[in-house]
Parts: sequence; structure tokens; C-alpha cells
Amino acid sequence: MIDDKIRNVVKEFKAYVPGKSKEEIARKYNLNPETIIKLGSNENPWGCSPMIKDRLLEELPKFSQYPESINPILLQEIADFAKVPKENLIVGGDGADEVIDLIMRILIDEGDEVIIPIPTFTQYAISAKIHGANIKWAKYDEKNEFKLDVNSVLSQITDKTKVIFLCTPNNPTGNIIPNEDIKKIIESTDALVMIDHAYIEYSRKEYDLTDWALKYDNVLVLRTFSKVLGLAGQRIGYGVSSTKIIDYMMRIRPAFSLTRATQISAIATLQDKEFIYKSLDDGIRSREMIYEGIKQFKELEVYPTEANYMLIKVKNGMNSSQFAEELLKKGVIVRDCYSFTGLEPYYVRVSIGTFEENERFLKILKEVVE
Amino acid sequence: MIDDKIRNVVKEFKAYVPGKSKEEIARKYNLNPETIIKLGSNENPWGCSPMIKDRLLEELPKFSQYPESINPILLQEIADFAKVPKENLIVGGDGADEVIDLIMRILIDEGDEVIIPIPTFTQYAISAKIHGANIKWAKYDEKNEFKLDVNSVLSQITDKTKVIFLCTPNNPTGNIIPNEDIKKIIESTDALVMIDHAYIEYSRKEYDLTDWALKYDNVLVLRTFSKVLGLAGQRIGYGVSSTKIIDYMMRIRPAFSLTRATQISAIATLQDKEFIYKSLDDGIRSREMIYEGIKQFKELEVYPTEANYMLIKVKNGMNSSQFAEELLKKGVIVRDCYSFTGLEPYYVRVSIGTFEENERFLKILKEVVE
Repeated sequence: MIDDKIRNVVKEFKAYVPGKSKEEIARKYNLNPETIIKLGSNENPWGCSPMIKDRLLEELPKFSQYPESINPILLQEIADFAKVPKENLIVGGDGADEVIDLIMRILIDEGDEVIIPIPTFTQYAISAKIHGANIKWAKYDEKNEFKLDVNSVLSQITDKTKVIFLCTPNNPTGNIIPNEDIKKIIESTDALVMIDHAYIEYSRKEYDLTDWALKYDNVLVLRTFSKVLGLAGQRIGYGVSSTKIIDYMMRIRPAFSLTRATQISAIATLQDKEFIYKSLDDGIRSREMIYEGIKQFKELEVYPTEANYMLIKVKNGMNSSQFAEELLKKGVIVRDCYSFTGLEPYYVRVSIGTFEENERFLKILKEVVE
Repeated sequence: MIDDKIRNVVKEFKAYVPGKSKEEIARKYNLNPETIIKLGSNENPWGCSPMIKDRLLEELPKFSQYPESINPILLQEIADFAKVPKENLIVGGDGADEVIDLIMRILIDEGDEVIIPIPTFTQYAISAKIHGANIKWAKYDEKNEFKLDVNSVLSQITDKTKVIFLCTPNNPTGNIIPNEDIKKIIESTDALVMIDHAYIEYSRKEYDLTDWALKYDNVLVLRTFSKVLGLAGQRIGYGVSSTKIIDYMMRIRPAFSLTRATQISAIATLQDKEFIYKSLDDGIRSREMIYEGIKQFKELEVYPTEANYMLIKVKNGMNSSQFAEELLKKGVIVRDCYSFTGLEPYYVRVSIGTFEENERFLKILKEVVE
């Protein structure tokens, strides 16, 4: 029986619940995908850089050839963008998820421990569990506007702790972890502190700790092209860390996980400063527009945010799934947060849209809430 | 010290040596990438399907959105192409490598065993080692034209055996494993038998065992878009297996590892029957042309092949690295097989080129050999 050969951890495993795509929603609710407002996956609502098109067509004749394992132009562009030396970089496929997996693969033997404050991005726990880690939960404190409870992290550190996951701004709560709290954690342990900066471009400058990855031996900063850079569909992210950690990851990384189309799209994007600047500037204005709009509803509580999304507590008597479903029927995708461990079932997460989408969204919201 | 936290297997790990890209070779030898003849990576020398272009441009505005986790159109096209039900399919990123990793993740706990006959595709051993498996080596017998030594496999099976890797046609030797030998192995064990069919399209029909994945509980057939389908640069492959195995892999697979550009390129390719037919037909003619050409050199021994490449033993006094280097200087990339465990250092692997490339290659070969 092949069943007897399967790992126990896999037998007990539940699959990740990803955000829904426009295509899926259009099929399910029989809607036109063009009119759907997608505020569910923290994407760049203005699309990707217009500079990609020509470069992609130039690259197309080479789709039949293996990509470069390390693309030196891409590496240099990322180094310049993140303001770090190339030697401190690892670039991975599948957004930032491949880098998370690599961290697990270099550090986790069966029975090692990781610390994850929740609610947070669910991929950390999934990757940790598959790699045989025991998870110690800590918390972003619901009673204290989801501020990280630093002691809930510090008190769990043991000799077996291999990785501590800190997401800042935190997904789905939107708030940052104060720099001094992160510093305290880093300096309390030899374990690797993973600072997930997927949304850092949207935050105030002083919260960008990318250069801490160069200062400390035990820090990895995770960043992605999926958010402000507009390439969620092309699956690319990167890690910044000490050369020592980077070297270990390079030994076991997949040699060809970044496609040719992705490499060329990423290069074109980073060379398009105007696109990045405008996406960020408009993104922050869009955030303010939604935030102020939602604040008008007494049935909704919206949390302050340093990211391109915000957490909302539904207080009109519906639970989050009912609320999200009502919006879906009217063609708006928000993220029902029931799948985030550590949250009561009354939270949804809303991403920024274009200004026109925001207007339509706020109108639809009014119909659903009131 | 973060060093103390790193897994021992990683500290001892050597990185995979991938085939070289035209871009790398062009930089190193100061050549024009357009004139380089790449016969090193078993790609489709005629490029990818011309049907991709328009579909890719249609998809481009969606590059900023996460891809569909499971694309139903792609799944159906693959099912039709491979002649298997959708329920028996898993589609992965990074060529077939992601599916190999998933197999390891559902089956391997620290200390479990896998059986790998060598010389073969080096990725099996890399993935197995990273996931904590002990590798038991078996052999394709050099003294017997690299025929699989079935007893070298059967004699290694224990209660701890989780996976047996069979590559047919085998990379780099090019020969197939007889069906009755594979059957004997499958029926001798509960372990999963992975039949790697990356090159099966180039083989005679009777060697295609894809439907055995439906017949047996413990078989996974691996296939890829990187070879005759012309999408090595877009990193997509798939596995066919029992619904039970597929279900376990689906639970832990990366939710979004296939990019939008890859999904749409793969769909366009499978819908372009003319491209596939012509690539295969020309591919087999190209193989015959190179095979016959190389057979003329008494300093080279070429092995019969059912794939889009062939193994060559260099007997002019050079070792494989010297020989490959001489070809490189003249702008021809072949695969130096020194990195394949289990081969003496006198073998190179040569892939099919276009007919014009073959002619130039055979001329250059003459200069180097004689």
C-alpha cells in the first residue's frame, strides 16, 4: 500500500486557501471578469510596467532555451533598487515563497522549532510544517490594535529555535512592528529572524530595515515583485541576508526557477522608475481614499495601515464569510480572513484599487453594510 | 553563531552544475550569442510555438494579478495531450523539478531511502539529499551499453525504500529501459516508482508508459514542456499518477508557482498541433543526421538513442572537459558529462540542432577531433 509510505505530516495536512482570481469568481458567479473589482490580493491595481511589452517580445524567440540560472543584469538592478550589494542577494521564483522554503531547507531538521506571531501570512506555517518544524505561536495582540506582543516571542525562544517570522507591515493587520522591538528580538537569539518586507515600499522610510540584513548575521529580509512592482502574476521575490546565509541558500536553490519572461519583466520594471514612483504615490493616495471612505461606516472598524491594504472588522451582524460573499455577488473580491489562524471570524482585508474602482467599491459597500 | 543552526546536509552540499546558457558562453568567450550553436541542454532547436505571441500580449495586462492556482483550460489541454484524466494530473513550475520535490515532500522523512541507478539526471539525488533521504545507488551498466542493471535496483529494496527513480529514455545515455524490466520493479515493491518521461515523445510509441500511472497505485510518470514542446525557458512540467498520490501532492504544492506567461504559453503550445508534429518529425530527422555524422569519426563512440540527444565517448586522448572546451572556443555548447555521477570523464552529450546548425557543428567537430 502506497498509503503506508506517505509522511504523517502530509496525511494531516490541509491545503493553503489562496485568494481568488477574477477568472474563478467570474465563472462561479457568472460575471464579466472585466467588471470585477479585485481588492483581495494586495496587488498593484494599475497593472504592470508598460516597458515590459517590447522586451518580452524580444525575449520570446528564446522561450525554448533554459533561462540563465543567475541573470547578472537582473541581480544588479535588484541590488540597486534595494540598495544592497549583489553578494547579499538571492532571487527566487514563486514570489517570496521560494525564499521562505529555502530558509526552511537550510535550517530545519525534524523537530526544530520556529516562532510565528499570529495572525500573519499563512505561508510561513505551511512551509515550516512541511519541513518538519514544530511551530510555537506568538501573537499580534488583537486587544492592543494588533501590536506585536514582544514577550510572546521572547518567551518562546529555546535552543531549538531556528527561525522567527516577523512580517512588517504585517499581513493582514497592516501595522508595522516598531524597530526597537525587532532589534530586541534579533539581539536575543542566534536563530534567524526573517523580516518580511513584502509591503515595505508603502511604509514610512524609517521602517525599512533592509540594511539590517547586512548589519546582523542572523537576519533575512524578504521582498517581492508582487506588490507595488506589479508582477504578482510573474512570481518573483528576493531575500537580503549575510553572505553566509546567502551562500547556503545558493547551494540548494532550484537552478532555473525564474522563467525567461519573468526575468525580463522584472528588469524592465526596475528600469521604469516613473512606473514605480507613480504606482507608489497613487497607491498611497488610494489607501487614504478607501480608509477615509470606510471610516464613515459605523458598522465597520478599519485599522490604521502602512501597507496597500487594510484590515476591517465587520460589526453589522454578519461574519466575515457572509460579508465577503455579499460583496462577491456584486462583483467585489475582498479577502475573507477566516483562513488566518488567530483571528475571530469577523475580519476582512481590503486592498487598494484604482480611484475609479474605489468609488464603485464604496458605493457597493454602502449597499451591503446598511 | 548562525552557522551552528545550519543543517549538516546543507553544510556538506555542493551546488548543482547546470548546462550553460548562450548568454554565459557569449560573455565568457567574447562571442556573438546569435552565432553560438547550443547543443548542450536538450532543447527544441526550432524555438517555441509561433501561436504564443498573440496570447502572451493579451495576457500582459494581467501580469500584475496572481495567476490562477489551477488553470482549468491548461489542465484540460494537458489531459488531452497526455491522454489521461484531469484527476490524475499535477502541473508544476520549474520544469519537472517541482514535481520531483513534491514527491520527496510527501514521502521522505529523515533516514528514508531512495534508489537511483546512475548515470542519470542529477536532480533526483539533489532533491532526495536535501529532503533527508539516504541514497542507494544502482546502475545503468557501462559495460552493457548502459542497459539498466535490474538486479542492482531490486537487491537494494528494503522496508525503508520510498522512491525508485527510473529515467526512460535515460539522461544522459539516451537508451530506454525495457518495459518488462520496469514492470518487474513496480511489482516488486510498494515504494513509488518514478518514471521520468521527459523525452518520451522522441521514443517509439511502445515505450510510452504514461498509462501505467493509472494502472498501478505506486507509479508516477513525469513529463515536461522543456523538450519537444519548446518551453524550457518557461519552466513547466507535470506528473501523472494515482488520484491518491495526486491528492497528497496537491495539499502541499506551492499554490502559485506557474506564472501567467507560462500558463498561457503552455496552452498556446498544446493547441498548436502543427508545431508539435513538425518539431517531433524534424527532431527525429535531426537526431539521425547527427548520429550518422558522428559515427564517421573513429575517435568518437556514439550510443543509440531514443531521445533528442546522444551520448558520445571521446577517444582521441582528450578528457570530456578538454573536448567540450575546444568546442566552446569555436562557439558550440555540448554537455560535458563530468558532473554526472557514475560516468568516467570521457563522455559528452550532444543535443539535436537545426539542420543548418548540425552541418556547422559536424564541420567544427571535424576540426576538433582530427
